[in-house]
Amino acid sequence: MTKSALEISEWFRGLQDRITTALEKADGYGKFREDLWEREGGGGGRSRIMENGKVIEKGGVNYSAVFGNTPDFLRKQGSEDQMLEESFFATGVSIVIHPCNPFVPIIHMNVRYFESGDGSSWWFGGGIDLTPHYVIPEDAVFFHQSLKTTCDRHDKQYYPKFKTWADDYFFIRHRQEMRGIGGIFFDHLKEDHTQPDKTAIWKFVQDVGNTFAPVYTALIEKNKEKEYTETEKKWQRLRRGRYVEFNLVYDRGTRFGLETNGRTESILMSLPPIAEWIYDYKPETESTEQKTLNFLKKGIDWIEKRST
Amino acid sequence: MTKSALEISEWFRGLQDRITTALEKADGYGKFREDLWEREGGGGGRSRIMENGKVIEKGGVNYSAVFGNTPDFLRKQGSEDQMLEESFFATGVSIVIHPCNPFVPIIHMNVRYFESGDGSSWWFGGGIDLTPHYVIPEDAVFFHQSLKTTCDRHDKQYYPKFKTWADDYFFIRHRQEMRGIGGIFFDHLKEDHTQPDKTAIWKFVQDVGNTFAPVYTALIEKNKEKEYTETEKKWQRLRRGRYVEFNLVYDRGTRFGLETNGRTESILMSLPPIAEWIYDYKPETESTEQKTLNFLKKGIDWIEKRST
Repeated sequence: MTKSALEISEWFRGLQDRITTALEKADGYGKFREDLWEREGGGGGRSRIMENGKVIEKGGVNYSAVFGNTPDFLRKQGSEDQMLEESFFATGVSIVIHPCNPFVPIIHMNVRYFESGDGSSWWFGGGIDLTPHYVIPEDAVFFHQSLKTTCDRHDKQYYPKFKTWADDYFFIRHRQEMRGIGGIFFDHLKEDHTQPDKTAIWKFVQDVGNTFAPVYTALIEKNKEKEYTETEKKWQRLRRGRYVEFNLVYDRGTRFGLETNGRTESILMSLPPIAEWIYDYKPETESTEQKTLNFLKKGIDWIEKRST
Repeated sequence: MTKSALEISEWFRGLQDRITTALEKADGYGKFREDLWEREGGGGGRSRIMENGKVIEKGGVNYSAVFGNTPDFLRKQGSEDQMLEESFFATGVSIVIHPCNPFVPIIHMNVRYFESGDGSSWWFGGGIDLTPHYVIPEDAVFFHQSLKTTCDRHDKQYYPKFKTWADDYFFIRHRQEMRGIGGIFFDHLKEDHTQPDKTAIWKFVQDVGNTFAPVYTALIEKNKEKEYTETEKKWQRLRRGRYVEFNLVYDRGTRFGLETNGRTESILMSLPPIAEWIYDYKPETESTEQKTLNFLKKGIDWIEKRST
């Protein structure tokens, strides 16, 4: 493990502190409960979970820093891209928040760092994406514009590239729907002939991490007092069902975690408090629910939408 | 497609009729809604779904008979076991029932037949397994004894072999829990030096199919009027959450269906009407919920239990 890896890990731990503080303040009532855990094989984590807050129905902000021998199937992958050695170090922060109010969106953030045993190969990954139960166009524009502003400070190519990546990644193929309105997603970000040096990439990843709290607390503040009906709460449960489908069928982090004997409760904190499935449910044409479905498509340019 | 394949398929369609009739009678109020669907590439199915019955909160009894070219990734598998040709025919009945009353168990049955284009290679698969929200030992014994009686009529080795197979299959690895109390599970059952001829295997599969309705309606009758509390209904939702986890993460039929562009609504009829997740939930020691968890282990010999 290199000095840099420790610094990155420490910064992620501090990010978890800052985010849980900001979320407790935004909730105004709920508190995070903390679980420290150790990984057999090396390292561990600090899971923080809030349940039954005033704003947050269920949410997790997890930090981990683990090391050890690279699992066999990862090593096999590594032989292809020459990124994995015998041992590894991985650290990051993962967040999923399921709010009470159906007009407050579900949000997910992840920032992570990986390096091989001797530190000679490394990469960053991460992203932030939003899953509104009801897509509110001005919120979607605000969200994407905030991410673009963060990205643009580092590389003008980041936002369009990582926005497309998110569109491709957060797609529920068997439903032919996006999980939400996307955001940014990136992986294997490392120094090469097209990327800047490690310090510059690390600054970008930190900037992504710092973008989470102000953006999400703004969306909470704007929508948390909105009144809602039982019909809207039911729709929220149905959309949460889709969230479950994505996370258990497609999400690489979830599947990787479950397959490598990760800490199940920390991995599955992403699942909603409650979810519903109705056979072949189709909202009425022209309903706000159907309008939301129309927005769950790949390739919508939210920033362009604002200017037209 | 051989004449035999058509006969098998017709019998399965009749089995669906008999089972939906029996379940409507057992429910006493709910009716199955029917959706006919066609598969792009060949064949189709008849899905029957009941929602908000008096006994059955959500359940599906699906019949399908599909044919066409073997999907690429199956063909690759086939090159290993020489069972798959260029084209295929597959037919079967799949059932999942989520009852209202937490003392009535969830049940799953599947019987299926597969053959290659020229009919030279074929196999049967299937099974019945039970997922009680609360394990009631005498019901578990009755269930396993009924399956054993069916199996024993055909081959004394079937029950122990297929019971172990179910224990191994219906296991939620990341929870280190069985999905329920198992039952029987078998796949690739075909004529070889240890198996009898096709007619004998087909008789066994029919017998499994015929075992479903009397066994499940008996469990319904016995438990449907039991009173339950909100705590017990909550536990039911938590166990349904585990059912979702198994089906989306591990179940081969579900994952195969979603990956091969099967009819999503028919595949995911297996998901419960509503499910719940609480972070790191642990029932109290000595509670009936904890007693149920103690029964969700591999290798419990329910029939032996009765005699001791």
